[in-house]
Amino acid sequence: MARDPFVVGGGDAAGLSAASKFRRESDREVVVLERGRWVSYAHCGLPYFVEGSVGRLTDLLSLSPADIEERGIDLRRGHEAVAVDPDDRTVTVRTDGERYELSYDELLVATGASATTGPFDAGRDGVFTIHGLDSAAALDAYLSPPDDYDRARLGDGPVDEALVEHNAALDPPARAAIVGGGYVGVEMAEALAARDLDVHLFQRSDHLLAPFGEAVGERVASHLEARGVTVHAGRPVDRIEGEDRVEAVVAGGERYPFGLAVLGVGIEPNASVLDGTGVGRGSAGAIRTDAYGRTSVPGIYAAGDVATARHAVTGEEAWVPLGLTANRAGRAIGATVAGDPTPVGDVAGTAVVKAFDLECGRVGLVPEAATEAGFDPMTETITAGSRSSYYPGGDDTVVTLVADRTTERVLGGSIVGRDRAAIRIDTLATAIEADMTVGDLERLDLAYAPPFSPVWDPVLVAAKVLGGRLDD
Amino acid sequence: MARDPFVVGGGDAAGLSAASKFRRESDREVVVLERGRWVSYAHCGLPYFVEGSVGRLTDLLSLSPADIEERGIDLRRGHEAVAVDPDDRTVTVRTDGERYELSYDELLVATGASATTGPFDAGRDGVFTIHGLDSAAALDAYLSPPDDYDRARLGDGPVDEALVEHNAALDPPARAAIVGGGYVGVEMAEALAARDLDVHLFQRSDHLLAPFGEAVGERVASHLEARGVTVHAGRPVDRIEGEDRVEAVVAGGERYPFGLAVLGVGIEPNASVLDGTGVGRGSAGAIRTDAYGRTSVPGIYAAGDVATARHAVTGEEAWVPLGLTANRAGRAIGATVAGDPTPVGDVAGTAVVKAFDLECGRVGLVPEAATEAGFDPMTETITAGSRSSYYPGGDDTVVTLVADRTTERVLGGSIVGRDRAAIRIDTLATAIEADMTVGDLERLDLAYAPPFSPVWDPVLVAAKVLGGRLDD
Repeated sequence: MARDPFVVGGGDAAGLSAASKFRRESDREVVVLERGRWVSYAHCGLPYFVEGSVGRLTDLLSLSPADIEERGIDLRRGHEAVAVDPDDRTVTVRTDGERYELSYDELLVATGASATTGPFDAGRDGVFTIHGLDSAAALDAYLSPPDDYDRARLGDGPVDEALVEHNAALDPPARAAIVGGGYVGVEMAEALAARDLDVHLFQRSDHLLAPFGEAVGERVASHLEARGVTVHAGRPVDRIEGEDRVEAVVAGGERYPFGLAVLGVGIEPNASVLDGTGVGRGSAGAIRTDAYGRTSVPGIYAAGDVATARHAVTGEEAWVPLGLTANRAGRAIGATVAGDPTPVGDVAGTAVVKAFDLECGRVGLVPEAATEAGFDPMTETITAGSRSSYYPGGDDTVVTLVADRTTERVLGGSIVGRDRAAIRIDTLATAIEADMTVGDLERLDLAYAPPFSPVWDPVLVAAKVLGGRLDD
Repeated sequence: MARDPFVVGGGDAAGLSAASKFRRESDREVVVLERGRWVSYAHCGLPYFVEGSVGRLTDLLSLSPADIEERGIDLRRGHEAVAVDPDDRTVTVRTDGERYELSYDELLVATGASATTGPFDAGRDGVFTIHGLDSAAALDAYLSPPDDYDRARLGDGPVDEALVEHNAALDPPARAAIVGGGYVGVEMAEALAARDLDVHLFQRSDHLLAPFGEAVGERVASHLEARGVTVHAGRPVDRIEGEDRVEAVVAGGERYPFGLAVLGVGIEPNASVLDGTGVGRGSAGAIRTDAYGRTSVPGIYAAGDVATARHAVTGEEAWVPLGLTANRAGRAIGATVAGDPTPVGDVAGTAVVKAFDLECGRVGLVPEAATEAGFDPMTETITAGSRSSYYPGGDDTVVTLVADRTTERVLGGSIVGRDRAAIRIDTLATAIEADMTVGDLERLDLAYAPPFSPVWDPVLVAAKVLGGRLDD
C-alpha cells in the first residue's frame, strides 16, 4: 500500500529545507502548505530593503515557486493547515474559504512565528510591525512621496497590492518612533535614519539589545546617538495616539509627535494548528521537540521559529527563533523522515547584529540566565584593539566573557566593535559547543597578523583576564 | 642562600613575556640578555612600515627599555648569550668584545630565528632580507630619493645610523624582485607596490603561500597580478647578479633587471648558544621542548621562534615560528619558573596573511602533511558568499576543509576572500583544537545576519559538503 505523503506546514526556511532534503533522499510525495502567497524569503533582510541597500523586495526571495515545484515538491500557496487529528493522521487545510482533509504519514509543523503588537493597537495607518514581505512593502510605500511610489522597488512578486496602494497614497512621515530596542528596533533605527527620518528609539529597560548584555547595549546606544538616532532608554511607551493614523507616542508621561511607529516588541510562535492535539509546549508556548525534532505525538515534527531546541550550554529546552536553527532543523528532519535519522543540533544562542558600522555578537548565557540555570557565573569585560596598535583602521573591541566559577567552563559572551567584531563571536560559539574551559580558550592558537588581530586576539585577552581571576 | 637569577636570552616576544610574567609572580631577580639594541618590537609589522601604512619605525616598539626596567627586569642590551654550561649552570655572555659568566638558576633560550639567504649572496647593495628593524630602516632609506631620506620615519630608536646613511645615499630602484612567495614575499610585494615600484615575485613551486594550499595560492597569485604585481610561479631564481649592487635576477634561464631584491626564502632558529650542551634538537634544528617549554636538560627552557611546540592535530613536535606562540610560551614559562607550572599550549598552525585587500587564513594540516602524519585525508574546497546574496559588499569566500576519512576528525583548512575571510579561520582553529569531527563542525550554531554571513556560513557549507562525501 502506498504511504501517505510527508506534509509540511509552512513554506519558509524550516519547511522548505525539510521538503527539499526529503525529496533528495526519498521518492515519496511531500506537500508543503503555505497560508500566504510568499515562500522562501529572507526575513532577516527586511530592514535592509526598507533602508534601501537591497534594491528590490524580490531580491529577498531565495527560491521561486517554480524552483520549488521543480524539486518535486507539491507546493500549495494560500493553503493553511488549521487543525490536526493525530489519531487519523490528517490535517485540516483551509483555502479560499473552503476546507479539506489531507492524510499524512509524517507531519512537520514549520509555521514560524508572528510579530506581536504588545498592548498597542496596530490597526492604524503609520503603525507597522516588520514581519513578512508585505509589511516591508507597505512601510516602503508609506515612506514615499504621496502617489509617487516607485513600484520597481517591489519586483514582480505576489505583493499585497491594495495594502501598498493604500500606504503609497498617504503623506510620508518626517519622524519615526521605534518601539523596542531588540534586533528589529536597532536594525530599523538604522534603516529609517538612512531614509532621512528623525528617528527616536524607545526602550523599556535601561539597555538596548538586552540579550547581548550591558557592555554591548551601552555602546550601541551611544553609537546610535552619534549617528543621529535619539535613544530613550528606560522609557517604556505607554500608548500610541491617533485616530486613523498615528499622531504621537506617549512615553514616561511625555507626548512625542510621530508620523510613523515601528513596533519591535517581540514575536510569538504560530503553534495554534496543534491546539487540541496534546502536543507538548515549551518555553514561550513554542512546540516542544526532541533531538530529532519530534514532538510528543508520534508522526508529528516541528522546526524553526515555532519550535524549541536544546541549548548547548544548559542542555535544557530553549526557544531561540533564528534563521540557521530553522534551516538546519528542517534539513535534519527531512533526512530523518526520509529514513536517515539526523539530529537537529543544539542552539548556542549565537546572534549578531549591525548598528550602522558597529558590529555586535553574543552567544550562550548572560550572567542572569546562567544563575537561573544553576551555574555560578563569573563575568569579565575587557577592551582590546582589533588590530596591532600600530596598524591603521583598528577599533576598540569590547569582549564580555561569562564562565562558571567551579568548573571554569565558558558559558557565554558578547563582542562589540567596528572592525570585524561580530564574526569573532563564532570563536566563542565553537568553544562553548566544545565545552571548553576558560583555560582551554586562553590557550587557543588563534590567528595573528597586524591587519586582522593583535598578537592576543580580544577573545584571548578576555580569557586571560577572566582566567587570572578564576585562579585567585 | 639566595638563588641565582632567572636568565633569559633574547629580548623580544618570548623573552620579555617570560620575564614580565615572572616578575609579576616572583621577587627573584631576572636578567634579560639581548644581543642587539632593539627590544620588544613587532616583527610582523615590518612590511607595513616599508609600505608606509605605519608612520614611524618606532611605532613598532611595544615596550621601551625604560618600561622594561620599570617592571624590575635587569635588561642588558648589547649582551649576547654565546655559550651555556649546564652542569655549572652558567651562561657565557659577550658584550663589546668582552666576555663574562653569569650564573643562572633557570635559563630560558628565547633567541628567535634569523632570515636565511638561501644560495644567494646578500652582501651587496639592494639585496635585503626583512628581519629586524634595521633591515626595514635600511630598505626604507634605500627607496628614498638619494640623500633626501625623511629621518622622521625612524623615530628616535637605536637605529643603525651607518647602515641607513649608506642606503639613503644610493639611487632608488624602479623595479623590485621578491624572491620567495611565502608570507614575507606576499606582504613585501604589496608593500613595494604601494611604494610605486614595478614588483615581480618569483616563486620556486607552482603556488604562492604553499602552507595555505592550492586554492589560496592561486587566488592570491591572480589577485597580486590584478594589482600590478607580476607573479613568476614555478620559476626558481638561479642567481642574483651585480657586483657591489644588485643588477638583475636570473630565473628559468632568463635575466630580469632589478635595482632591488628582497629575499623571503626562509628563517632558521638561532639555537647555537646551546651547541655542546646536549640539549635535544627537533624539526629544522629548533630546540626540542616539552609541554612546559622544558628542554632535555634540567633548568633550561626554550620558547618562541627558536623552539619546537606540540602540534594540536598530530600531537607531535612541530616548528611553527609565529608571534602568538612565542608570547604565550614565554608567559607560561615565566609562570612556571615563578612556581606556578603552566603548560605552553599547543600550536594549531593558525596563520593569516593579507595580499592587498585579499584575506587568507590557514590552520592545521594540508593533505600532504596529513598523509605524512598517518591520517587518511579527504579534502573538499567550496565557494560560498560571505554575506547573504542580496546584501551588498560580500565576496566569494573559498574554504578548503581537510578531514580524516576514518574518524571524520577535522585536520585542517584554509580560507580566502575579501570580506572578513581571514578571521573566520579562528572558527576552524577552535574546532580543530577541540578535536571536532566534520559532523560537529556542521552542527555548530554560528552567527548569521545578512551583513556578516549567509544563513550557512562558508565554513558550515564546507562542512556540509565534505560531511556528505564522508557519509557516502
